[in-house]
Amino acid sequence: MQTTDKTKELSTTLVLVNDKLHFTGHADTNAPVSIDYIPPLGDNLGYTSLELFLLSISSCVGSAVLILLRKMGKTISEFRINSNGIRRNQHPTGFSNITLDILLKSPDATQADLDKVLSMSNEKLCPVWAMIDGNVEVKVNSEVIKAL
Amino acid sequence: MQTTDKTKELSTTLVLVNDKLHFTGHADTNAPVSIDYIPPLGDNLGYTSLELFLLSISSCVGSAVLILLRKMGKTISEFRINSNGIRRNQHPTGFSNITLDILLKSPDATQADLDKVLSMSNEKLCPVWAMIDGNVEVKVNSEVIKAL
Repeated sequence: MQTTDKTKELSTTLVLVNDKLHFTGHADTNAPVSIDYIPPLGDNLGYTSLELFLLSISSCVGSAVLILLRKMGKTISEFRINSNGIRRNQHPTGFSNITLDILLKSPDATQADLDKVLSMSNEKLCPVWAMIDGNVEVKVNSEVIKAL
Repeated sequence: MQTTDKTKELSTTLVLVNDKLHFTGHADTNAPVSIDYIPPLGDNLGYTSLELFLLSISSCVGSAVLILLRKMGKTISEFRINSNGIRRNQHPTGFSNITLDILLKSPDATQADLDKVLSMSNEKLCPVWAMIDGNVEVKVNSEVIKAL
């Protein structure tokens, strides 16, 4: 289905699958993603649009950080990002603030390494972050644990 | 897991699951989403961050449109959105342009109804669109087919 060069162009398809707001989304040959909104408008049968956005920005920041740490020769034993977004009170109710909590376990990467990499990634390397630049405040917390 | 009020605040978790860029993402009790990047950096084992972004904005616009059409008493027989995003050539390689192609089949909604609803939704009602306002150009095409 997806025949384009993903470094240049991307495509997705979204189809309504019930009489409220339950959608099935997909791209390329990936397993479909169930998307819905909370009651009463939806039935909570899938990810909300804003949860997909948080996964989008976390994986974008995560990828940039991992690529840079590996370029420095560092070993990654465990890596996770918990994200949280606070919505605006008035329409449009997008996020005013997003917090990303990064946990890195590594035998050889230090907090200073991660801080350096984070200062390089963010707006400059993460495409999703760049697209909300000036509109949403993003804060990154991080913890490095020495572990094999 | 998710105990917060999703109209105010949302959370997701992302975990690295291989030694490249393959992540598992999840929120609430939803089935995990497989996230990866294309070779050579990744192994194409899941959605890219920017594909998740396209699903996020399509479902956001789709939900706003459906809510407004139903408020006008219209019946939705089929509804889908194909999205396409063109990336910038230079870092950060986020989208410069996004195109959403909306297909609506309805026995009673007209193109004028959909146009009206689209002019009301967009930046004003769709949170994801609002978060990229001023940074990314979004174009919406639409087609209405009369069908039961």
